[in-house]
Amino acid sequence: MAENNKKIRKVCLFLADGCEMVEALTVADLLRRAGIPLTTVSINGKKEILSSHQVLIRTDEDIENFSFAEYDMIILPGGQPGTKNLRANIPLSQAILNFAEEGKALAAICAAPTILAGLELLNGKRATCFPGCETGMGKAVLTNEAVTTDGNIITGRSVGCAIPFALEIIRYCLGAEAAENIRKTIVYDVRQ
Amino acid sequence: MAENNKKIRKVCLFLADGCEMVEALTVADLLRRAGIPLTTVSINGKKEILSSHQVLIRTDEDIENFSFAEYDMIILPGGQPGTKNLRANIPLSQAILNFAEEGKALAAICAAPTILAGLELLNGKRATCFPGCETGMGKAVLTNEAVTTDGNIITGRSVGCAIPFALEIIRYCLGAEAAENIRKTIVYDVRQ
Repeated sequence: MAENNKKIRKVCLFLADGCEMVEALTVADLLRRAGIPLTTVSINGKKEILSSHQVLIRTDEDIENFSFAEYDMIILPGGQPGTKNLRANIPLSQAILNFAEEGKALAAICAAPTILAGLELLNGKRATCFPGCETGMGKAVLTNEAVTTDGNIITGRSVGCAIPFALEIIRYCLGAEAAENIRKTIVYDVRQ
Repeated sequence: MAENNKKIRKVCLFLADGCEMVEALTVADLLRRAGIPLTTVSINGKKEILSSHQVLIRTDEDIENFSFAEYDMIILPGGQPGTKNLRANIPLSQAILNFAEEGKALAAICAAPTILAGLELLNGKRATCFPGCETGMGKAVLTNEAVTTDGNIITGRSVGCAIPFALEIIRYCLGAEAAENIRKTIVYDVRQ
């Protein structure tokens, strides 16, 4: 798997109305367990969003007052209309393009990898997405894996793959041992 | 596995400050996908809680104005100090005892099965819990499974087992086919 050769200081997780709360909060939960500084950011102009399953969640920040410069990774949860709302946000799209240009990391799960594809950031890259979103993946090389890392871009398949997606982000930021420790702590390998 | 012989009309999910948000919201997410009416209830006296990983979540109801009579299942997420807070709530403990007496369903995950054990509801019953919580499980017969159902009581092991726990609640409420459909929808079986 790709190794991260830049130190990750802080990551930011973007939430919109209609986002998939388990995809978003599994990342927040596991990364905070691992000690990775993570900021939740609303794109609504207020610090709260209503998830696609009708739960209102307060965020740490809103995008209007958000300083991207301090951050090294942008994370995008899926869900609908959350993905559509994230895609339509111009400051977020601009920040994603800037991060790509600077070689900073990008992570997206479920329908959200199509946001990266729409910005032509997945051309020729290995990536995964929710089944049915393939037509929005442009020139990506689809893997159908639970989670795929190609260079500085991490993609995940679905809410059912939220834990592997979060563990891979931890691996990318802190290394395999840190990810394995969290995997054990959450007792992920007792399966039914 | 045990079959549910009573129709489940509505389920209620209790949240306290310090609860494990992924354990709580995976249940809310998957049950709502399955069409099971689910109400989130705070025990704080206000309709919001701060999770154990610092996310503020608004609930549908608070326990002071909550009508248990309409409900057929109580669900308890784990996390600390969330579990301790749930355990200390007298109206909730009384409602759990009433549900048990009426043969209504109870579900708890991670550290929260110890709440049921403390009320002597797991004596001689098969159950699972988070590793390290065994001493709080009283006379339960520990399975160490991801999720265990014994009669009207469903227990889950950890945040890493939140999806199997939620799927088992769906199976209990609606049958195996409904649970299998959600399992497929969320693409749970692509594993890494």
